[in-house]
Amino acid sequence: MALIVQKFGGTSVGNTERIRNVAQRVARARAQGDQIVVVVSAMSGVTDGLIRLAKEITSLPAEREMDMLLATGEQQTIALTAIALHALGIPAVSLTGAQAGIVTDGVHTKAKIRNISPAQVHQLLDAGNVVIVAGFQGQTNDGQITTLGRGGSDLTAIALAAALKADLCQIYTDVDGVYTADPRIVPTAQKLPEISYDEMLELAGAGAKVMQLRSVEFAKKFNVIFEVRSSQNDNPGTIVKEETQSMENVVVRGVSIDKNQAEVTVLGVPDQPGQAARIFRALATAAINVDMIVQNVSHAGGLRVTDISFTVDKPDLLKATHVIEGLKPDLSFTEVTADENICKLSIVGVGMRSHAGVAARMFDVLAHENINIGMISTSEIKISVVIDLPDGDRALRAVHQAFLG
Amino acid sequence: MALIVQKFGGTSVGNTERIRNVAQRVARARAQGDQIVVVVSAMSGVTDGLIRLAKEITSLPAEREMDMLLATGEQQTIALTAIALHALGIPAVSLTGAQAGIVTDGVHTKAKIRNISPAQVHQLLDAGNVVIVAGFQGQTNDGQITTLGRGGSDLTAIALAAALKADLCQIYTDVDGVYTADPRIVPTAQKLPEISYDEMLELAGAGAKVMQLRSVEFAKKFNVIFEVRSSQNDNPGTIVKEETQSMENVVVRGVSIDKNQAEVTVLGVPDQPGQAARIFRALATAAINVDMIVQNVSHAGGLRVTDISFTVDKPDLLKATHVIEGLKPDLSFTEVTADENICKLSIVGVGMRSHAGVAARMFDVLAHENINIGMISTSEIKISVVIDLPDGDRALRAVHQAFLG
Repeated sequence: MALIVQKFGGTSVGNTERIRNVAQRVARARAQGDQIVVVVSAMSGVTDGLIRLAKEITSLPAEREMDMLLATGEQQTIALTAIALHALGIPAVSLTGAQAGIVTDGVHTKAKIRNISPAQVHQLLDAGNVVIVAGFQGQTNDGQITTLGRGGSDLTAIALAAALKADLCQIYTDVDGVYTADPRIVPTAQKLPEISYDEMLELAGAGAKVMQLRSVEFAKKFNVIFEVRSSQNDNPGTIVKEETQSMENVVVRGVSIDKNQAEVTVLGVPDQPGQAARIFRALATAAINVDMIVQNVSHAGGLRVTDISFTVDKPDLLKATHVIEGLKPDLSFTEVTADENICKLSIVGVGMRSHAGVAARMFDVLAHENINIGMISTSEIKISVVIDLPDGDRALRAVHQAFLG
Repeated sequence: MALIVQKFGGTSVGNTERIRNVAQRVARARAQGDQIVVVVSAMSGVTDGLIRLAKEITSLPAEREMDMLLATGEQQTIALTAIALHALGIPAVSLTGAQAGIVTDGVHTKAKIRNISPAQVHQLLDAGNVVIVAGFQGQTNDGQITTLGRGGSDLTAIALAAALKADLCQIYTDVDGVYTADPRIVPTAQKLPEISYDEMLELAGAGAKVMQLRSVEFAKKFNVIFEVRSSQNDNPGTIVKEETQSMENVVVRGVSIDKNQAEVTVLGVPDQPGQAARIFRALATAAINVDMIVQNVSHAGGLRVTDISFTVDKPDLLKATHVIEGLKPDLSFTEVTADENICKLSIVGVGMRSHAGVAARMFDVLAHENINIGMISTSEIKISVVIDLPDGDRALRAVHQAFLG
């Protein structure tokens, strides 16, 4: 008898018909003799509707009250899912995050899970119930309702799987699994049967938005094996787990493109210690997320200056250039340029570590396609380049063809 | 500095504009220097929408899960109300029933309040907050979410007022207060400045649906003075409190009509001990609420038989006659008749106790109007008669005119 955590996102529970489908899937899994814990999100649209109500009242609602408000979305879904299981004759009990023993810190709207006391869940499972837990939420030690922020339901599932020592954690979503590239752009892209945590992290960071980074990080930290699969069919998905030796035989696991990036370049920065720190401290203070950073070697010549380029999310571009302009009194530089018309192309694979020349081959492919490379950034298992946005899809297909066929 | 509990029903918080109005009203009360606890219902339509979702899945959802589901309605309103108060610069904290210390028994969907631990509410009030509590809900000692059933938010307000030793409890609703009669039928009806618990109970039982009986009973039991008033204006409402001597100077406090009753008569029941008990035990088992009961004196003659009449809610009429027919093997009677075309007219007043002849005067008024009386039932402070439905409004106006002008 295995213990399986199954997580269903907002689309999978988007109406009562879909909730009934989820119940049938859970019932089938239980019929195999396994213990099942179900984690659900709010029905799609519910959270946005609640946010809209709050914004009708004020543009800046208190975060504690937003948690109080938004936690109701998942609470509704757990009750409806339990009701749907009952209708199939399956004993089931719903639990809020608090009732399930999920204790978080007190940072409202983006709380971190501190610990989970799984006694209550185990007890209900042992009594023969399917246990349905509200994703995305928990409570502080002194009983305040908190939410975990974006991707919080995935995190609930993975953290519960860790706390319950589950045999498997299944993340049901609207895609079939993790692909070698976005199939909408690369028709030859293939679903990966398995992928390592690190590859999944790099792909997520590279724009393949299957899951939020923090859930994958959490799974890696607590070594929770999970499967990303579709709630629309019974196809096996992609297993995400610790790296195995055989994974290294594949040089490139996947190729991704992030079209949500924009590039900022600060020209003519004095090549003195602390100049770069100043820039990025100011951006961090403004809560602007910086992805790639490249600093060129200083120009030779009388006054040693350098250019610093970085990428930010497109919606943050204007804010980022304002922040830099605001540094002018303290930081001498020539000019700030901004370019929205770019994208980031990445190749990811743990096999890169033991295969030389991967970067050279990638650049060759792009050169052959006559595509110009703006910035380059590499990690041990990822190579990212910034290229012009209109070249993006063509570059993705060419690189996928070269490495993954 | 007084402590005031203000309760707002579903219509008063039906959309964000109305929630803002509630916040402004609360802010004005707080500006007087008082401590304010606000109890709110779910936004009108929300609870029905949730019930509809559950019914889409199954016709008989588990009551524990219905509580889990429905409790979200009030939780949304408390958060939005807190947000609206913040927008006015008023410190406010929302609490679920559980967080407010409301402990109930475990009878899901109609739980009874066992006790309230008001420490948390007092602490938040003393720190300068308006405290907003979700009506209609609580939790059991072992942390199950429960709801209190119909009229539950009124009950929350009154129970909190008792536990907090509040100076006043205001029930804001869509009527101005308690009237001597329904103003839609009796244009000369007047708002009562005050009324005793017993009169309020009798009027509620007589069809004046301002509040559920149980909330008034609770208020009487714990001697909570409350005011029924409108959320649409600033007019003083009706104070409901323990009877005072001056109240007895008014013979009749109010006149009401209940058009939701139907009459059942069981003819020719043998006049033996236990026959009536059999009938009403069977009705109780079928969860049929019986209001008036009249048994005539036995017919003189060879075989002593009697007729038993009673009234039930109109929707229960068919069920009630079926239940009686089903007794035929055990209980000999001649016939069951049913009459939907009736209504119940009642006059209520603590002054009746010390004034003889009130009933006679009422019957005189009806006779003068040529209105036939079907059944009569009296309590110490109420006289009810069953009359033909088409005579109802005319009878109400005539009796009101005679006793209340």
